[in-house]
Amino acid sequence: MAAANRDAFWAPSSKVNPDLARERESATFDVRELTHIIDGSPDRTKRRKELENLLYSEPVFRDVGRLSMERDEIYEQGVLKSIKLFEWSRKYKWDDDDFELASRLANHDISMSLQHAMFIPAIERLASDTQKAKWLPRALHYEMIGTYAQTELGHGTNLMELETTATFDPERNEFIMNSPTVTSMKWWPGALGKSSNTAIVLAQLIVKGKNHGLHPFLVPLRSMEDHTPLPGISVGDIGPKMALNCIDNGFLIMKNVRIPRENMFMKNAEVTRDGRFISRGVDKANYATMVLVRVKITRWAFESLSDGATTAVRYSVVRRQSSLKPGERELQVLDYQSQQYKVLPALAASYAFLMTNRSLHRLYDSVHADIMAGNTKLLAELHCQSSALKAYMSEVVVQLLELCRQACGGHGYLASSGIGLLCASSAPLVTVEGENSVLYQQAARYLMKQVAKAVVGDPVASGFQYLLTQSSSDRPDIRIQNLADCGNLDTLLQVYQRMAFSVVTGAARKLQMAIESGVEQHVAWNNNMVSLIQAARFYALHGIAKEAGYFLATPTLTPDQFELVRAAELQAMAKVRHDAVPLVDAFDLHDICLHSALGCYDGNVYERLYALAQTSSLNKTQVHPAYYKHIRGLVKDGQKQLRQQSKL
Amino acid sequence: MAAANRDAFWAPSSKVNPDLARERESATFDVRELTHIIDGSPDRTKRRKELENLLYSEPVFRDVGRLSMERDEIYEQGVLKSIKLFEWSRKYKWDDDDFELASRLANHDISMSLQHAMFIPAIERLASDTQKAKWLPRALHYEMIGTYAQTELGHGTNLMELETTATFDPERNEFIMNSPTVTSMKWWPGALGKSSNTAIVLAQLIVKGKNHGLHPFLVPLRSMEDHTPLPGISVGDIGPKMALNCIDNGFLIMKNVRIPRENMFMKNAEVTRDGRFISRGVDKANYATMVLVRVKITRWAFESLSDGATTAVRYSVVRRQSSLKPGERELQVLDYQSQQYKVLPALAASYAFLMTNRSLHRLYDSVHADIMAGNTKLLAELHCQSSALKAYMSEVVVQLLELCRQACGGHGYLASSGIGLLCASSAPLVTVEGENSVLYQQAARYLMKQVAKAVVGDPVASGFQYLLTQSSSDRPDIRIQNLADCGNLDTLLQVYQRMAFSVVTGAARKLQMAIESGVEQHVAWNNNMVSLIQAARFYALHGIAKEAGYFLATPTLTPDQFELVRAAELQAMAKVRHDAVPLVDAFDLHDICLHSALGCYDGNVYERLYALAQTSSLNKTQVHPAYYKHIRGLVKDGQKQLRQQSKL
Repeated sequence: MAAANRDAFWAPSSKVNPDLARERESATFDVRELTHIIDGSPDRTKRRKELENLLYSEPVFRDVGRLSMERDEIYEQGVLKSIKLFEWSRKYKWDDDDFELASRLANHDISMSLQHAMFIPAIERLASDTQKAKWLPRALHYEMIGTYAQTELGHGTNLMELETTATFDPERNEFIMNSPTVTSMKWWPGALGKSSNTAIVLAQLIVKGKNHGLHPFLVPLRSMEDHTPLPGISVGDIGPKMALNCIDNGFLIMKNVRIPRENMFMKNAEVTRDGRFISRGVDKANYATMVLVRVKITRWAFESLSDGATTAVRYSVVRRQSSLKPGERELQVLDYQSQQYKVLPALAASYAFLMTNRSLHRLYDSVHADIMAGNTKLLAELHCQSSALKAYMSEVVVQLLELCRQACGGHGYLASSGIGLLCASSAPLVTVEGENSVLYQQAARYLMKQVAKAVVGDPVASGFQYLLTQSSSDRPDIRIQNLADCGNLDTLLQVYQRMAFSVVTGAARKLQMAIESGVEQHVAWNNNMVSLIQAARFYALHGIAKEAGYFLATPTLTPDQFELVRAAELQAMAKVRHDAVPLVDAFDLHDICLHSALGCYDGNVYERLYALAQTSSLNKTQVHPAYYKHIRGLVKDGQKQLRQQSKL
Repeated sequence: MAAANRDAFWAPSSKVNPDLARERESATFDVRELTHIIDGSPDRTKRRKELENLLYSEPVFRDVGRLSMERDEIYEQGVLKSIKLFEWSRKYKWDDDDFELASRLANHDISMSLQHAMFIPAIERLASDTQKAKWLPRALHYEMIGTYAQTELGHGTNLMELETTATFDPERNEFIMNSPTVTSMKWWPGALGKSSNTAIVLAQLIVKGKNHGLHPFLVPLRSMEDHTPLPGISVGDIGPKMALNCIDNGFLIMKNVRIPRENMFMKNAEVTRDGRFISRGVDKANYATMVLVRVKITRWAFESLSDGATTAVRYSVVRRQSSLKPGERELQVLDYQSQQYKVLPALAASYAFLMTNRSLHRLYDSVHADIMAGNTKLLAELHCQSSALKAYMSEVVVQLLELCRQACGGHGYLASSGIGLLCASSAPLVTVEGENSVLYQQAARYLMKQVAKAVVGDPVASGFQYLLTQSSSDRPDIRIQNLADCGNLDTLLQVYQRMAFSVVTGAARKLQMAIESGVEQHVAWNNNMVSLIQAARFYALHGIAKEAGYFLATPTLTPDQFELVRAAELQAMAKVRHDAVPLVDAFDLHDICLHSALGCYDGNVYERLYALAQTSSLNKTQVHPAYYKHIRGLVKDGQKQLRQQSKL
């Protein structure tokens, strides 16, 4: 595709697909008002539009060509995008919200995002005042380009087992950094492979032969003059991934790398010149930072899901296939109940997850303010909620995006549909920043403590009051007798609480019985892990019908009540279907950001698929080089054999 | 990676990971015997080994480098692999089984597989004897390289609406082929884009202004001399896909392309010289061909799943992370119950699906023999079973492979893990050769007919006898009173039949009620589509616990019985865990075929991850070109600003 074409490609055509236009005309609400609510306010909508205009005026952010880019080109574009955002951020004095919005508009396809997301915040959190004065300006002016190197090839979840060492050498007043085994190499940190010249490295601190546990160190990786790796440093990219290939996730092997004693971060602990280790205790604010990352992941989960829902809904309205009655015009595929069952849960969950993320963010803000004032009382509840919601929402998003992909039929398999890349980009959400099964278990531990409190009548945390109300002997019966009852939110809440209560207390009971029967506590925990994880998943189940087993086995609902719920679900689905297009339009995703031939605003699906096919690298020539190398010989041989046969 | 290194890369090391070795030593059965059963016989195992030796002696089939290949290179390798297989097939006189086995060993990464899978069989099925005599030798000697062009950009499922036309021109005794609209271009056929010089094109036959419906035509696409597209032909690749990028799925636009009248396939219908249309009726054997493709997909589903299970099980045994009790050695992650719940269902389903595929293939063989003898009685039941199983197995495989990927943690996201590519390669199974929702509905239609028969006491098809036994008034109670009862296969079968009976007859009842209340039949069908699809999914549910809702809502099991089933499931899981490694070893997948650093036989996971990282294109130079283009300026500017500030 020529450069001029590329630029025009994502401009919406004035010729909108008539099926899409019709859906928009019949909207039962004001789309723009909903957009303001989603953005946060009319002002935030305005700000987003300003940033869209800024970003998409730069060719690198309009990369329609990325469908067939090589890894090196993808990486280079990611670097360029990072630097553009850095420049603008400084020039226009962006706040954190602006920077995050811009990253989102760039689809998070930026190589060096850790500079502002982790490297600078970590210096602020971990460095002494003297260190801050020295390092922060260098990081803020991008002389230091940095990453945060924690995970190792053999160690992710269990930080205590990290093998990298920092051994104090009192003679030369230095630390000697080492990666003693294959499994100890740092592995995964973003921008570590090729971009960064500096890393914050987590290592076991060894002083006079004694291990003082994990501490952070500032380690120069590459020359500030020519970017070559420094002596003893072996560093590189860990290879292509399912997606996010603009990021040079890296490995790092250190062999007797010497850094000054002053490069140990000294806010929380210190090694003195004469080799004394001084600890000032762990800062609770560190936990809050970890929690914040999980809160942000629930936001990304919403963003990915709303992208997928937009593409699947719009395409399902444009695509017509078969008819229910022979001879009638082909039906929009969204009118098939089976298609609604694939697509509408993603739409519904998008809105649910937006609201959940907001309420979680409010809890975070309030707990964070408490911590700053010295009160850490709510930290454990925040930790439980953010762990469980990060795990649950990422799990559901991966499942629902796959359904959106399937709802796009064969075309969903094309890179130009955008939806495969969306699935691949969202895939790591379930393993990063706390592997989901581990997070569910952390939440389950907290839940079990709440149950123990409830049993003896002690007060429980605010989110777990249902443990008290549901266990009381005069709890009301669940009243589902007809379809209307199924629409009553109080009743539905009661249903969820009743089910949650049974699952949570059931898991606690099994655990207790195992321990009483003489099984060691940790073995009992493992033998009941599946029950415990089911317990931790309680509060965000996206549908009774979808998770029928929980409600029927506990038993919270009778089979008859369950049938009513299912019927009500189908009824609700038909209503949502009517407004499906306005509901995705309200996300107001720019076509460049969505980057999908199937999901574009104007619905000119087939024209765009065809236009994007032209950009395939195989189409650079009419006759592909593979013909001359391989196919020509095959055909010519065949012709020769046929001539010989005909002569015989 | 140097060429010499590449060759040695997948050779298993004599140094086997000790955890993996220990698992093998404690196997409770003879792995080799199970391998023979999986292959079919000791002879088939031997044959497989011979083919492995042949294939993997060719560098192109050992492509460890493909992790970072460009699309053009992937395509060229796919072409070369096709041609190698063609040559060997001829030279060594392979039968169909050999060819399929070789394709599997090549991971189906072959560009021109349609030549033998569809092009030649279609000529045999559709051409008159004269045509066969003319075309078959040219196809068998690869002068004609062909594809089968049916699907259009706007039309997949509903063939009747295909828009391509073939208009008879009696003056010149030719057909004029046209693609009248954007949506009418042929889109998706494999090898159409760049490789094929000939296509079998499905088009609406127009004679004297009258449409005679869809018929196949042989259309030359490219010059036999230099491969350039012929006049009026516009042909090319449709762009990169989530995977399977060695295949040049193509588009084809025809503008007044003239072909001789004799190029219409004439076995089933004909247009005479003077423009008379003669139909000889539809050949039932055509349906059998469509069914065979679905049977083959259930085989691919098994192959993909056993690949994923092998990688996930072996890695879960090598990977150690955290411990249940502080201070103890880190645990193999497969010892966590939560990990077992992710990985072991894939292992169990692999075996279940292998057996299901075999039994389905036997049914196909017997029905096919019947058809050849003129008896089409069992075709409808075969159609129902193959539709439902293709849909169900592909659906489950996509879900379980995703769980296998998640079970590999962060490393599963790396291309070198092989598992992302495996997921992406298997993704289209749910939409190709009959979109799953459509197939489920076809099965549901047949089921509803069986119910109608059962109601009036007419005999039902052999697979649906449970409709009679379960509806009888003296059906026995389900006897699940303790854990041992849960292991009784007859009892489990009864549980499934009871549940299936309730779901199927429930759906039929709802449909009937809607029709009786005056709703048109096709509307009633659509409004009950979700129930109907649930009905069609009945016979291969991979676990009662997983699909609890069905068993409890119907109600087949009481909540107490269900609890017993779940406890039995956890007990069974612990048993399977013991033999997990021998059970995946029995699949005997060659390391080259598996192509996974995490799943390799010797378990040297970390060494291989690191070795493969070296092959990343970003690591070609120590300092990436992006530094000179972009990063250097950023750093130098930062240094300048810092110097200026320090001067002030």
